[in-house]
Amino acid sequence: MSRIVTVGLVQQTCSDDKEATFAKTAAGIRDAAKRGADLVVLQELHAGPYFCQTEDPAHFAHAESIPGPATNRLAALARETAVVLVASLFERRAPGLYHNTAVIFERDGSIAGRYRKMHIPEDPGFNEKFYFTPGDLGFTPIETSVARLGVLVCWDQWYPEAARLMALAGAEILVYPTAIGWVPEDPDEERARQRDAWITIQRGHAIANQIPAVAVNRVGFEPRPGHPEDGIAFFGGSFVAGPQGEILATASTDREETLIVSLDLDRTEEVRQLWPFFRDRRIDAYDGLLNRYLE
Amino acid sequence: MSRIVTVGLVQQTCSDDKEATFAKTAAGIRDAAKRGADLVVLQELHAGPYFCQTEDPAHFAHAESIPGPATNRLAALARETAVVLVASLFERRAPGLYHNTAVIFERDGSIAGRYRKMHIPEDPGFNEKFYFTPGDLGFTPIETSVARLGVLVCWDQWYPEAARLMALAGAEILVYPTAIGWVPEDPDEERARQRDAWITIQRGHAIANQIPAVAVNRVGFEPRPGHPEDGIAFFGGSFVAGPQGEILATASTDREETLIVSLDLDRTEEVRQLWPFFRDRRIDAYDGLLNRYLE
Repeated sequence: MSRIVTVGLVQQTCSDDKEATFAKTAAGIRDAAKRGADLVVLQELHAGPYFCQTEDPAHFAHAESIPGPATNRLAALARETAVVLVASLFERRAPGLYHNTAVIFERDGSIAGRYRKMHIPEDPGFNEKFYFTPGDLGFTPIETSVARLGVLVCWDQWYPEAARLMALAGAEILVYPTAIGWVPEDPDEERARQRDAWITIQRGHAIANQIPAVAVNRVGFEPRPGHPEDGIAFFGGSFVAGPQGEILATASTDREETLIVSLDLDRTEEVRQLWPFFRDRRIDAYDGLLNRYLE
Repeated sequence: MSRIVTVGLVQQTCSDDKEATFAKTAAGIRDAAKRGADLVVLQELHAGPYFCQTEDPAHFAHAESIPGPATNRLAALARETAVVLVASLFERRAPGLYHNTAVIFERDGSIAGRYRKMHIPEDPGFNEKFYFTPGDLGFTPIETSVARLGVLVCWDQWYPEAARLMALAGAEILVYPTAIGWVPEDPDEERARQRDAWITIQRGHAIANQIPAVAVNRVGFEPRPGHPEDGIAFFGGSFVAGPQGEILATASTDREETLIVSLDLDRTEEVRQLWPFFRDRRIDAYDGLLNRYLE
């Protein structure tokens, strides 16, 4: 008997109209559930435009406690559709202390767990270090009724350490809510290299750890406040890779889309028996990984 | 001013005729040097057929000390062609103690350093645990006149830890002498997944560490001694990926070939400034990497 999990990936655009944006998210979740999804994954910070294009203290007003009004609405959707739901929120933990947090809801709407983004980016157009305190919950998978989920967020996807730690703690699927795009000055060939690198490294994590990887990215151009000619073209392309890194499905780079993919979780053990990577890790020789650099 | 290194990858078949096999290796090195290579990389255990298809103590007779006759011949070739040469040998360290060892020669034929394969495979057709003691030199790059080389060997390529440790120690290029192939019972789609996984994970190491990766694989079918209908179809496909994981060149899957690729080592710093992965590693939260498993 195979253990099948059907995953729904909701790739959408976001606007300043919070209700319209939420309505699209809700429609995506309902559509995924109707099409058989047991697990639905939303993109990073799906409640509105990617506000980290600038550093503006006014945005802290949109952060919320967990639980709070935003998680209550998402919990109701999880309960209504009876799916396990991975959402991504701007968490207000205390005055002056905020996180980029993924919340995982059970089918009954209860909160199964949360993950606070551990690796925080800071580069032009992605000013996350201003808003988000690096996570302090470590790399701990969340136990749910569909699978043990290794939920990570966006910039984490460039770190093999994060995926490995989730897998060592028994994660059965890697899940990456994401907001990645191109800035206007990137020429076409640089855009292609960046998108390909984004896909390839996550496929690499699937291969190294022999578990599927699910990446959900936002889509659409979002102008930079005050500089409408500037902005980020989020490139969508949400995808699912199997435990050998094989691409199982990919969304378009320019449209809203809900992708449905079935995963056989029993493949992991078969693949790990074929290529027993976990057997041979040289844990006696990995101490250097705890160093910033070795020079 | 860019720092350009031109790499030659010698992908070849191997036979029981040791002299004929060496002649092909020598011709490949000379061809690469003539075409501008500063650095030439040979495939894993290039001196003959991949003997680890069976467990036979008679093969220990072919192991050699380093330095020894095999390294003397290779050193002479490095000196003659004035290239930095990465070779792969069956090292006899002491009676009953053998390693799968890469030897790195300077342009003058001196030995710049060696790397003893740290991760040793053992699966049907790849009985390496019988022959090779796991390396005890750690993940230490070798300083050469062309670059600091992160030399790893074959099965190491499945371990992000190995690539990361080399990069943290300042490796400028990852180098993987390899012997990987298909066994007859693999159906076509499994073959495609395996080869694609092999390429993808190494591209992933290039991306994560923002340095080029050079993989040189043997090519051709080698029957299993005593079971000529059985054996391994080594799939060649030697390749070079740049520091964003972009494929710069790939050899064929079924022919002997010497590939020449120029690398601009200054790209690494540009790419690392664009996407500063090294800045944000959560070394405070990576302790679990030193565990076998976390359950």
